Amino acid sequence: MEYFSKDISRLINELAHLPGIGPKSAQRLAYHIINGPKEQADQLADSILKARNNVHYCKICCTLTDSDICPICSSDKRDHSQIMVVENSRDMSAYEHTGKYNGVYHVLHGAISPMLGIGPEDIRLKELMARLKDDIEEVIIATNSSLEGETTATYLTKLIKPLGIKVSRIASGVPVGGDIENIDEVTLLRALDGRIIL
Amino acid sequence: MEYFSKDISRLINELAHLPGIGPKSAQRLAYHIINGPKEQADQLADSILKARNNVHYCKICCTLTDSDICPICSSDKRDHSQIMVVENSRDMSAYEHTGKYNGVYHVLHGAISPMLGIGPEDIRLKELMARLKDDIEEVIIATNSSLEGETTATYLTKLIKPLGIKVSRIASGVPVGGDIENIDEVTLLRALDGRIIL
Repeated sequence: MEYFSKDISRLINELAHLPGIGPKSAQRLAYHIINGPKEQADQLADSILKARNNVHYCKICCTLTDSDICPICSSDKRDHSQIMVVENSRDMSAYEHTGKYNGVYHVLHGAISPMLGIGPEDIRLKELMARLKDDIEEVIIATNSSLEGETTATYLTKLIKPLGIKVSRIASGVPVGGDIENIDEVTLLRALDGRIIL
Repeated sequence: MEYFSKDISRLINELAHLPGIGPKSAQRLAYHIINGPKEQADQLADSILKARNNVHYCKICCTLTDSDICPICSSDKRDHSQIMVVENSRDMSAYEHTGKYNGVYHVLHGAISPMLGIGPEDIRLKELMARLKDDIEEVIIATNSSLEGETTATYLTKLIKPLGIKVSRIASGVPVGGDIENIDEVTLLRALDGRIIL
C-alpha cells in the first residue's frame, strides 16, 4: 500500500490484527481516529495501555481485574457459597448483565479440549479446587454447550461431587424467541430430554 | 457495568466510540487486547498516537499524509495533468487499489449538501481551483453517486468547464456481478441512459 503514508498504513495494520476487524474496517477505523479530535485518540491509546498494564487475574475467581480482588469477590452483598464456573470473563459478564445471579464466579480461561491439546492443567482448575472449602454449597457449571464445554463439565462433576458439594449444570435447550424449525437436532433433543413437568 | 474493573470499562467504552463497534464487539476487542501480548497493545497505542499526531492534509491534493506532499503528488511516474476528484481518502484508496489509474487526485473531504448545511466553502474546493492551471488536461469527478455527490459534481462542472478544462464523471450503472433483479430502479435507468453502443 505504497500510496498510504507510513503512519496510516501502520495504524491500519495494527487495527487489522484485532479479532473481527478486516482490512476495510481497519481502514475506516483508522480514518475515523485520524480525522477525529486529538483528545479522543489520546484517550483511546491511554486506555489501551492502562488496561493492558493494570489488568490481571483476580486472586480468587481468576477474572480480569485491576485490583487484587475483583469487585464481585470483594462484595459482601454476593452469596459466596455459590460459585458459577464459566469459560471466560465475557461469559461472566453476560450472566452479570442478567442482573439476577447473586453468587460469585470462577473463570477457567478456557475449556478442556483433547483435540486442541488443552488439558485440565492448562485452565484455572487448580484455583477452583482450592476454593472448594466447607462453606461452598453449590458449584454451577456454566461452560458452553460445545464439545469442550461438556467435556469440562463432566470432568468438573467427577472431581467435585465426591467432595459432597452440590454440582449443577445450566440448562441447554431451545433459546427464548428461537424458531423451533430453525434449531439444530442436537439442541431439540437436548430440550426434549431436559423438559420440565408443568 | 459495576462488575467490570475501572480500566476494562474505560477501554470498552473508548472502543465502543469507534464507528461500527457496538458494546459487544468493544468487549471482545478489549478482552483480546488485555489477554494478548503486552508488545501488541503497546504497538497499537503507539500507532494511534503517531497516526493522529503526524498525519495532516497533503499541501497539494489534501489527502491524509505524514509528509508535506503525499507519495502520489510527489511521484514523477504519475500523470499530473489528470486530476480525479474524490470525497475522501478512502475513495482515493479504493481507486488506487485498482492499480489502473495513473493520474493524481484531489480529496474534497466531504460533498456539498444543502440538507446538512455543507456548502462549497466547507469542502476543499478552493484548493482544487488553485490547482487548475494551464497544464491540467482533465478533471475526473469521482464523487459518490448520491444526492450530495451528484450536487457536488454538477457544481464542479459549472465551475471548471468555463476554464476550458475537460471535465468527466465516472460512469454510474449496474455493478459488475450485480443481479439486475436486485438493483434499484434509479440505477437501472442510469445504466440504460449510459449505455454504450457495441
